[in-house]
Amino acid sequence: MDKHEDVLKLLIEALQANLTPTEVKKDTYEIPVGVSNRHIHLSQEDVNRLFGEGYQMTKLKDLLQPGQYACKETVTICGPKGAIEKVRILGPVRSKTQVEILEGDGFKLGRGTQTRMSGDLQGTPGITLIGPKGSVQINEGLIVAQRHIHMGPEDAKHFGVHDGQIVSIEINGPRGGILNNVAIRANDASILECHIDIEEANAMGVNSSTKIKLIK
Amino acid sequence: MDKHEDVLKLLIEALQANLTPTEVKKDTYEIPVGVSNRHIHLSQEDVNRLFGEGYQMTKLKDLLQPGQYACKETVTICGPKGAIEKVRILGPVRSKTQVEILEGDGFKLGRGTQTRMSGDLQGTPGITLIGPKGSVQINEGLIVAQRHIHMGPEDAKHFGVHDGQIVSIEINGPRGGILNNVAIRANDASILECHIDIEEANAMGVNSSTKIKLIK
Repeated sequence: MDKHEDVLKLLIEALQANLTPTEVKKDTYEIPVGVSNRHIHLSQEDVNRLFGEGYQMTKLKDLLQPGQYACKETVTICGPKGAIEKVRILGPVRSKTQVEILEGDGFKLGRGTQTRMSGDLQGTPGITLIGPKGSVQINEGLIVAQRHIHMGPEDAKHFGVHDGQIVSIEINGPRGGILNNVAIRANDASILECHIDIEEANAMGVNSSTKIKLIK
Repeated sequence: MDKHEDVLKLLIEALQANLTPTEVKKDTYEIPVGVSNRHIHLSQEDVNRLFGEGYQMTKLKDLLQPGQYACKETVTICGPKGAIEKVRILGPVRSKTQVEILEGDGFKLGRGTQTRMSGDLQGTPGITLIGPKGSVQINEGLIVAQRHIHMGPEDAKHFGVHDGQIVSIEINGPRGGILNNVAIRANDASILECHIDIEEANAMGVNSSTKIKLIK
Protein backbone atom coordinates (compact mmCIF):
# COMPACT_ATOMS: atom_id res chain seq x y z
CA MET A 1 0.00 0.00 0.00
CA ASP A 2 1.09 3.57 -0.61
CA LYS A 3 3.01 5.08 2.32
CA HIS A 4 1.40 8.49 1.82
CA GLU A 5 -2.06 6.95 1.94
CA ASP A 6 -1.13 5.20 5.19
CA VAL A 7 0.04 8.43 6.80
CA LEU A 8 -3.02 10.33 5.60
CA LYS A 9 -5.36 7.62 6.90
CA LEU A 10 -3.54 7.72 10.24
CA LEU A 11 -3.83 11.50 10.53
CA ILE A 12 -7.54 11.43 9.75
CA GLU A 13 -8.05 8.72 12.35
CA ALA A 14 -6.04 10.77 14.87
CA LEU A 15 -8.17 13.87 14.27
CA GLN A 16 -11.38 11.88 14.47
CA ALA A 17 -10.40 10.18 17.71
CA ASN A 18 -8.72 13.32 19.10
CA LEU A 19 -5.53 11.40 19.78
CA THR A 20 -2.02 12.82 19.84
CA PRO A 21 0.29 11.65 17.02
CA THR A 22 2.38 9.75 19.59
CA GLU A 23 -0.57 7.68 20.67
CA VAL A 24 -1.41 6.93 17.05
CA LYS A 25 2.14 5.80 16.41
CA LYS A 26 1.90 3.34 19.29
CA ASP A 27 -1.22 1.78 17.80
CA THR A 28 0.58 0.99 14.56
CA TYR A 29 4.05 0.33 15.92
CA GLU A 30 5.38 -1.74 13.04
CA ILE A 31 8.78 -3.40 13.03
CA PRO A 32 10.59 -3.03 9.68
CA VAL A 33 12.51 -6.10 8.51
CA GLY A 34 16.09 -6.00 7.24
CA VAL A 35 17.18 -9.15 5.40
CA SER A 36 20.92 -9.94 5.58
CA ASN A 37 22.95 -11.90 3.08
CA ARG A 38 26.32 -13.35 4.08
CA HIS A 39 28.79 -10.56 4.92
CA ILE A 40 32.03 -9.73 6.69
CA HIS A 41 33.18 -7.21 9.30
CA LEU A 42 36.97 -6.75 9.10
CA SER A 43 39.56 -5.50 11.58
CA GLN A 44 41.95 -2.85 10.17
CA GLU A 45 44.77 -5.37 10.59
CA ASP A 46 42.97 -7.83 8.30
CA VAL A 47 42.04 -5.01 5.87
CA ASN A 48 45.78 -4.33 5.58
CA ARG A 49 46.55 -7.99 4.87
CA LEU A 50 43.75 -8.48 2.35
CA PHE A 51 43.83 -5.13 0.53
CA GLY A 52 47.26 -3.64 1.32
CA GLU A 53 48.72 -1.57 4.18
CA GLY A 54 46.51 1.35 5.22
CA TYR A 55 43.79 0.57 2.65
CA GLN A 56 40.49 2.40 3.21
CA MET A 57 37.21 0.74 2.21
CA THR A 58 34.91 2.49 -0.29
CA LYS A 59 31.37 3.11 0.94
CA LEU A 60 28.77 1.69 -1.45
CA LYS A 61 25.65 2.59 0.52
CA ASP A 62 24.50 3.38 4.03
CA LEU A 63 22.56 0.78 5.99
CA LEU A 64 19.59 1.71 8.20
CA GLN A 65 21.59 1.38 11.44
CA PRO A 66 23.47 4.69 11.96
CA GLY A 67 27.16 4.61 10.91
CA GLN A 68 26.89 1.18 9.29
CA TYR A 69 27.46 0.81 5.56
CA ALA A 70 28.07 -1.70 2.78
CA CYS A 71 31.45 -1.44 1.02
CA LYS A 72 32.26 -1.79 -2.64
CA GLU A 73 34.87 -4.41 -1.74
CA THR A 74 34.24 -8.15 -1.51
CA VAL A 75 36.46 -11.12 -0.68
CA THR A 76 36.37 -14.89 -1.19
CA ILE A 77 35.90 -17.11 1.86
CA CYS A 78 37.26 -20.65 1.76
CA GLY A 79 36.76 -23.72 3.96
CA PRO A 80 37.93 -27.34 3.70
CA LYS A 81 35.13 -28.29 1.26
CA GLY A 82 34.66 -25.21 -0.89
CA ALA A 83 34.77 -21.47 -1.46
CA ILE A 84 32.19 -18.69 -1.70
CA GLU A 85 33.13 -15.73 -3.87
CA LYS A 86 32.14 -12.07 -3.66
CA VAL A 87 31.22 -11.92 0.03
CA ARG A 88 30.33 -8.31 0.82
CA ILE A 89 32.32 -6.33 3.42
CA LEU A 90 30.42 -4.04 5.79
CA GLY A 91 31.99 -1.00 7.43
CA PRO A 92 33.29 0.55 9.57
CA VAL A 93 36.19 -1.68 10.68
CA ARG A 94 35.79 -3.52 14.00
CA SER A 95 38.24 -4.68 16.66
CA LYS A 96 37.88 -8.29 15.46
CA THR A 97 37.08 -9.84 12.08
CA GLN A 98 33.69 -11.57 11.97
CA VAL A 99 32.28 -13.59 9.06
CA GLU A 100 28.50 -14.01 9.04
CA ILE A 101 27.28 -16.79 6.75
CA LEU A 102 24.02 -18.59 6.02
CA GLU A 103 23.38 -22.04 7.50
CA GLY A 104 23.53 -23.47 3.96
CA ASP A 105 26.96 -21.88 3.39
CA GLY A 106 28.35 -24.04 6.19
CA PHE A 107 27.77 -27.13 4.03
CA LYS A 108 29.48 -25.56 0.99
CA LEU A 109 32.47 -24.49 3.07
CA GLY A 110 32.64 -27.72 5.06
CA ARG A 111 32.36 -25.92 8.38
CA GLY A 112 29.89 -26.64 11.16
CA THR A 113 27.97 -23.49 12.04
CA GLN A 114 27.16 -21.83 15.35
CA THR A 115 24.30 -19.39 15.71
CA ARG A 116 25.67 -16.45 17.71
CA MET A 117 25.06 -12.79 18.41
CA SER A 118 27.43 -10.37 16.71
CA GLY A 119 30.65 -10.07 18.75
CA ASP A 120 30.12 -13.32 20.67
CA LEU A 121 32.87 -15.19 18.86
CA GLN A 122 34.60 -17.31 21.51
CA GLY A 123 34.85 -20.95 20.43
CA THR A 124 33.36 -20.37 16.96
CA PRO A 125 35.04 -21.96 13.89
CA GLY A 126 37.74 -20.28 11.84
CA ILE A 127 37.82 -19.66 8.09
CA THR A 128 40.17 -18.37 5.36
CA LEU A 129 39.58 -15.03 3.61
CA ILE A 130 41.21 -14.25 0.27
CA GLY A 131 41.59 -10.65 -0.92
CA PRO A 132 43.39 -8.99 -3.84
CA LYS A 133 46.63 -8.44 -1.88
CA GLY A 134 46.77 -11.45 0.43
CA SER A 135 44.87 -13.96 2.53
CA VAL A 136 43.98 -14.22 6.22
CA GLN A 137 43.21 -17.31 8.25
CA ILE A 138 41.09 -16.47 11.28
CA ASN A 139 40.98 -19.01 14.12
CA GLU A 140 37.50 -17.99 15.21
CA GLY A 141 34.81 -15.59 14.02
CA LEU A 142 32.65 -17.64 11.62
CA ILE A 143 29.02 -17.40 12.77
CA VAL A 144 25.44 -17.61 11.64
CA ALA A 145 23.86 -14.44 13.02
CA GLN A 146 21.21 -14.95 15.67
CA ARG A 147 18.05 -13.14 14.58
CA HIS A 148 17.65 -9.90 16.51
CA ILE A 149 15.76 -6.62 16.74
CA HIS A 150 17.64 -3.33 16.89
CA MET A 151 15.78 -0.58 18.74
CA GLY A 152 16.21 2.70 20.58
CA PRO A 153 15.27 3.31 24.25
CA GLU A 154 11.81 4.62 23.35
CA ASP A 155 11.04 1.54 21.30
CA ALA A 156 12.21 -0.71 24.15
CA LYS A 157 9.91 1.19 26.51
CA HIS A 158 7.00 0.83 24.07
CA PHE A 159 7.46 -2.94 23.74
CA GLY A 160 8.34 -3.38 27.43
CA VAL A 161 11.61 -5.15 26.66
CA HIS A 162 15.26 -4.60 27.57
CA ASP A 163 18.62 -5.03 25.85
CA GLY A 164 19.60 -8.72 25.73
CA GLN A 165 16.06 -10.02 26.26
CA ILE A 166 15.01 -13.00 24.13
CA VAL A 167 11.60 -12.72 22.43
CA SER A 168 9.75 -14.33 19.52
CA ILE A 169 8.44 -12.74 16.35
CA GLU A 170 5.25 -13.58 14.52
CA ILE A 171 5.38 -13.24 10.73
CA ASN A 172 2.16 -13.00 8.71
CA GLY A 173 1.48 -14.27 5.18
CA PRO A 174 1.02 -17.65 3.50
CA ARG A 175 4.46 -18.85 4.59
CA GLY A 176 4.22 -17.22 7.99
CA GLY A 177 4.74 -18.50 11.51
CA ILE A 178 6.72 -17.75 14.64
CA LEU A 179 10.51 -17.54 15.06
CA ASN A 180 11.81 -18.06 18.61
CA ASN A 181 15.07 -16.90 20.13
CA VAL A 182 15.12 -13.35 18.75
CA ALA A 183 17.51 -11.13 20.74
CA ILE A 184 16.69 -7.53 21.64
CA ARG A 185 19.55 -5.10 20.94
CA ALA A 186 18.46 -1.84 22.52
CA ASN A 187 20.74 1.20 22.72
CA ASP A 188 20.81 4.92 21.97
CA ALA A 189 22.46 4.44 18.58
CA SER A 190 19.88 2.05 17.08
CA ILE A 191 16.89 2.39 14.77
CA LEU A 192 13.95 -0.02 15.06
CA GLU A 193 14.66 -2.92 12.65
CA CYS A 194 14.37 -6.70 12.84
CA HIS A 195 17.35 -8.48 11.27
CA ILE A 196 16.88 -11.95 9.81
CA ASP A 197 18.97 -13.66 7.13
CA ILE A 198 17.99 -14.66 3.58
CA GLU A 199 17.20 -18.26 4.47
CA GLU A 200 14.91 -17.15 7.30
CA ALA A 201 13.24 -14.58 5.02
CA ASN A 202 12.74 -17.11 2.21
CA ALA A 203 11.45 -19.82 4.54
CA MET A 204 8.87 -17.41 5.96
CA GLY A 205 7.99 -15.80 2.61
CA VAL A 206 9.06 -12.35 3.84
CA ASN A 207 8.52 -9.52 1.34
CA SER A 208 7.94 -5.77 1.42
CA SER A 209 4.37 -6.19 2.72
CA THR A 210 5.30 -8.57 5.56
CA LYS A 211 4.32 -7.52 9.08
CA ILE A 212 6.39 -8.48 12.12
CA LYS A 213 4.83 -8.72 15.58
CA LEU A 214 6.93 -8.97 18.73
CA ILE A 215 5.82 -11.71 21.16
CA LYS A 216 7.13 -11.83 24.72
CA MET B 1 19.74 -40.48 21.96
CA ASP B 2 20.18 -44.15 21.10
CA LYS B 3 17.13 -45.65 19.37
CA HIS B 4 17.54 -48.99 21.16
CA GLU B 5 17.60 -47.27 24.52
CA ASP B 6 14.40 -45.41 23.59
CA VAL B 7 12.60 -48.63 22.67
CA LEU B 8 13.81 -50.41 25.81
CA LYS B 9 12.71 -47.51 28.01
CA LEU B 10 9.33 -47.53 26.30
CA LEU B 11 8.84 -51.28 26.81
CA ILE B 12 9.72 -51.03 30.48
CA GLU B 13 7.27 -48.16 30.89
CA ALA B 14 4.61 -50.20 29.08
CA LEU B 15 5.09 -53.19 31.35
CA GLN B 16 5.06 -51.01 34.44
CA ALA B 17 1.90 -49.20 33.41
CA ASN B 18 0.31 -52.34 31.91
CA LEU B 19 -0.33 -50.52 28.63
CA THR B 20 -0.59 -52.15 25.23
CA PRO B 21 2.24 -51.34 22.76
CA THR B 22 -0.21 -49.36 20.60
CA GLU B 23 -1.00 -47.02 23.44
CA VAL B 24 2.69 -46.55 24.13
CA LYS B 25 3.32 -45.65 20.49
CA LYS B 26 0.71 -42.91 20.70
CA ASP B 27 2.53 -41.28 23.61
CA THR B 28 5.70 -40.82 21.59
CA TYR B 29 4.23 -40.29 18.16
CA GLU B 30 7.13 -38.47 16.54
CA ILE B 31 7.01 -36.98 13.05
CA PRO B 32 10.19 -37.62 11.03
CA VAL B 33 11.38 -34.72 8.87
CA GLY B 34 12.38 -35.05 5.23
CA VAL B 35 14.30 -32.07 3.84
CA SER B 36 13.87 -31.45 0.10
CA ASN B 37 16.32 -29.73 -2.21
CA ARG B 38 15.13 -28.38 -5.57
CA HIS B 39 13.95 -31.24 -7.82
CA ILE B 40 11.90 -32.11 -10.90
CA HIS B 41 9.09 -34.54 -11.71
CA LEU B 42 8.99 -35.19 -15.49
CA SER B 43 6.26 -36.42 -17.82
CA GLN B 44 7.34 -39.25 -20.16
CA GLU B 45 6.84 -36.84 -23.07
CA ASP B 46 9.37 -34.42 -21.57
CA VAL B 47 11.74 -37.32 -20.68
CA ASN B 48 11.71 -38.20 -24.40
CA ARG B 49 12.54 -34.62 -25.40
CA LEU B 50 15.29 -34.13 -22.79
CA PHE B 51 16.93 -37.58 -22.84
CA GLY B 52 15.80 -39.19 -26.12
CA GLU B 53 12.73 -41.15 -27.29
CA GLY B 54 11.70 -43.91 -24.86
CA TYR B 55 14.51 -43.14 -22.38
CA GLN B 56 14.10 -44.79 -18.96
CA MET B 57 15.44 -43.05 -15.85
CA THR B 58 18.00 -44.82 -13.65
CA LYS B 59 17.01 -45.20 -10.01
CA LEU B 60 19.68 -43.80 -7.67
CA LYS B 61 17.90 -44.44 -4.36
CA ASP B 62 14.45 -44.98 -2.93
CA LEU B 63 12.77 -42.20 -0.98
CA LEU B 64 10.75 -42.84 2.19
CA GLN B 65 7.39 -42.45 0.42
CA PRO B 66 6.57 -45.81 -1.25
CA GLY B 67 7.33 -45.97 -4.99
CA GLN B 68 9.14 -42.61 -5.04
CA TYR B 69 12.84 -42.47 -5.89
CA ALA B 70 15.70 -40.15 -6.82
CA CYS B 71 17.17 -40.67 -10.30
CA LYS B 72 20.78 -40.56 -11.40
CA GLU B 73 19.83 -38.03 -14.06
CA THR B 74 19.83 -34.25 -13.61
CA VAL B 75 19.00 -31.33 -15.92
CA THR B 76 19.68 -27.61 -16.04
CA ILE B 77 16.81 -25.19 -15.47
CA CYS B 78 16.99 -21.75 -17.00
CA GLY B 79 14.99 -18.54 -16.52
CA PRO B 80 15.36 -14.99 -17.89
CA LYS B 81 18.04 -14.05 -15.32
CA GLY B 82 20.06 -17.23 -14.85
CA ALA B 83 20.42 -20.99 -14.81
CA ILE B 84 20.71 -23.65 -12.12
CA GLU B 85 22.65 -26.76 -13.07
CA LYS B 86 22.32 -30.36 -11.87
CA VAL B 87 18.72 -30.26 -10.68
CA ARG B 88 17.81 -33.79 -9.56
CA ILE B 89 14.98 -35.70 -11.25
CA LEU B 90 12.64 -37.76 -9.05
CA GLY B 91 10.74 -40.77 -10.35
CA PRO B 92 8.42 -42.25 -11.41
CA VAL B 93 7.21 -40.12 -14.34
CA ARG B 94 4.04 -38.10 -13.79
CA SER B 95 1.26 -36.91 -16.09
CA LYS B 96 2.66 -33.35 -16.03
CA THR B 97 6.16 -31.95 -15.53
CA GLN B 98 6.63 -30.07 -12.25
CA VAL B 99 9.73 -28.15 -11.16
CA GLU B 100 10.05 -27.55 -7.42
CA ILE B 101 12.56 -24.85 -6.51
CA LEU B 102 13.63 -22.94 -3.41
CA GLU B 103 12.38 -19.39 -2.84
CA GLY B 104 15.97 -18.16 -3.33
CA ASP B 105 16.21 -19.94 -6.70
CA GLY B 106 13.42 -17.71 -8.00
CA PHE B 107 15.77 -14.71 -7.74
CA LYS B 108 18.59 -16.52 -9.56
CA LEU B 109 16.25 -17.64 -12.35
CA GLY B 110 14.41 -14.30 -12.54
CA ARG B 111 11.04 -15.90 -11.93
CA GLY B 112 8.48 -14.93 -9.31
CA THR B 113 7.58 -17.92 -7.18
CA GLN B 114 4.28 -19.36 -6.05
CA THR B 115 3.99 -21.64 -3.05
CA ARG B 116 1.74 -24.52 -4.11
CA MET B 117 0.90 -28.10 -3.25
CA SER B 118 2.30 -30.71 -5.62
CA GLY B 119 0.02 -31.07 -8.66
CA ASP B 120 -1.69 -27.69 -8.17
CA LEU B 121 0.00 -26.04 -11.13
CA GLN B 122 -2.65 -23.87 -12.78
CA GLY B 123 -1.42 -20.32 -13.28
CA THR B 124 2.13 -21.00 -12.02
CA PRO B 125 5.14 -19.66 -13.98
CA GLY B 126 6.89 -21.58 -16.75
CA ILE B 127 10.59 -22.41 -17.06
CA THR B 128 13.06 -23.94 -19.53
CA LEU B 129 14.68 -27.35 -18.90
CA ILE B 130 17.85 -28.39 -20.74
CA GLY B 131 18.82 -32.06 -21.01
CA PRO B 132 21.52 -33.95 -22.94
CA LYS B 133 19.28 -34.54 -25.99
CA GLY B 134 17.12 -31.42 -26.11
CA SER B 135 15.30 -28.72 -24.18
CA VAL B 136 11.71 -28.21 -23.06
CA GLN B 137 9.90 -24.99 -22.30
CA ILE B 138 7.00 -25.57 -19.93
CA ASN B 139 4.32 -22.87 -19.74
CA GLU B 140 3.45 -23.66 -16.13
CA GLY B 141 4.69 -26.01 -13.42
CA LEU B 142 7.36 -23.99 -11.56
CA ILE B 143 6.47 -24.00 -7.84
CA VAL B 144 7.88 -23.68 -4.36
CA ALA B 145 6.46 -26.70 -2.53
CA GLN B 146 4.05 -25.90 0.27
CA ARG B 147 5.28 -27.63 3.44
CA HIS B 148 3.23 -30.73 4.14
CA ILE B 149 2.97 -33.89 6.21
CA HIS B 150 2.51 -37.26 4.51
CA MET B 151 0.66 -39.82 6.63
CA GLY B 152 -1.39 -43.00 6.49
CA PRO B 153 -4.99 -43.36 7.71
CA GLU B 154 -3.92 -44.54 11.18
CA ASP B 155 -1.64 -41.53 11.63
CA ALA B 156 -4.47 -39.22 10.55
CA LYS B 157 -6.75 -40.87 13.11
CA HIS B 158 -4.09 -40.50 15.81
CA PHE B 159 -3.61 -36.78 15.14
CA GLY B 160 -7.32 -36.19 14.51
CA VAL B 161 -6.69 -34.61 11.10
CA HIS B 162 -7.89 -35.29 7.56
CA ASP B 163 -6.40 -35.11 4.07
CA GLY B 164 -6.17 -31.50 2.90
CA GLN B 165 -6.37 -30.00 6.41
CA ILE B 166 -4.03 -27.10 7.16
CA VAL B 167 -2.08 -27.31 10.42
CA SER B 168 1.03 -25.77 11.99
CA ILE B 169 4.21 -27.47 13.15
CA GLU B 170 6.31 -26.58 16.16
CA ILE B 171 10.06 -27.11 15.77
CA ASN B 172 12.31 -27.31 18.83
CA GLY B 173 15.93 -26.20 19.20
CA PRO B 174 17.82 -22.88 19.36
CA ARG B 175 16.54 -21.79 15.94
CA GLY B 176 13.07 -23.24 16.51
CA GLY B 177 9.60 -21.80 16.19
CA ILE B 178 6.29 -22.48 14.48
CA LEU B 179 5.58 -22.85 10.76
CA ASN B 180 1.98 -22.20 9.68
CA ASN B 181 0.16 -23.43 6.60
CA VAL B 182 1.35 -27.03 6.64
CA ALA B 183 -0.91 -29.26 4.51
CA ILE B 184 -1.94 -32.77 5.57
CA ARG B 185 -1.58 -35.36 2.80
CA ALA B 186 -3.24 -38.47 4.15
CA ASN B 187 -3.77 -41.60 2.05
CA ASP B 188 -3.21 -45.36 2.13
CA ALA B 189 0.06 -45.13 0.21
CA SER B 190 1.85 -42.71 2.56
CA ILE B 191 4.37 -43.05 5.39
CA LEU B 192 4.43 -40.47 8.22
CA GLU B 193 6.93 -37.77 7.19
CA CYS B 194 6.96 -33.97 7.30
CA HIS B 195 8.39 -32.42 4.12
CA ILE B 196 10.06 -29.02 4.31
CA ASP B 197 12.67 -27.55 1.96
CA ILE B 198 16.32 -26.71 2.62
CA GLU B 199 15.67 -23.03 3.29
CA GLU B 200 12.97 -23.87 5.83
CA ALA B 201 15.23 -26.48 7.46
CA ASN B 202 18.20 -24.07 7.63
CA ALA B 203 16.10 -21.18 8.93
CA MET B 204 14.76 -23.38 11.74
CA GLY B 205 18.10 -25.12 12.44
CA VAL B 206 16.61 -28.55 11.66
CA ASN B 207 19.00 -31.48 12.16
CA SER B 208 18.77 -35.19 12.93
CA SER B 209 17.77 -34.54 16.55
CA THR B 210 14.98 -32.05 15.72
CA LYS B 211 11.48 -32.88 17.00
CA ILE B 212 8.36 -31.84 15.10
CA LYS B 213 5.04 -31.35 16.90
CA LEU B 214 1.75 -31.03 15.01
CA ILE B 215 -0.44 -28.11 16.14
CA LYS B 216 -4.07 -27.87 15.08
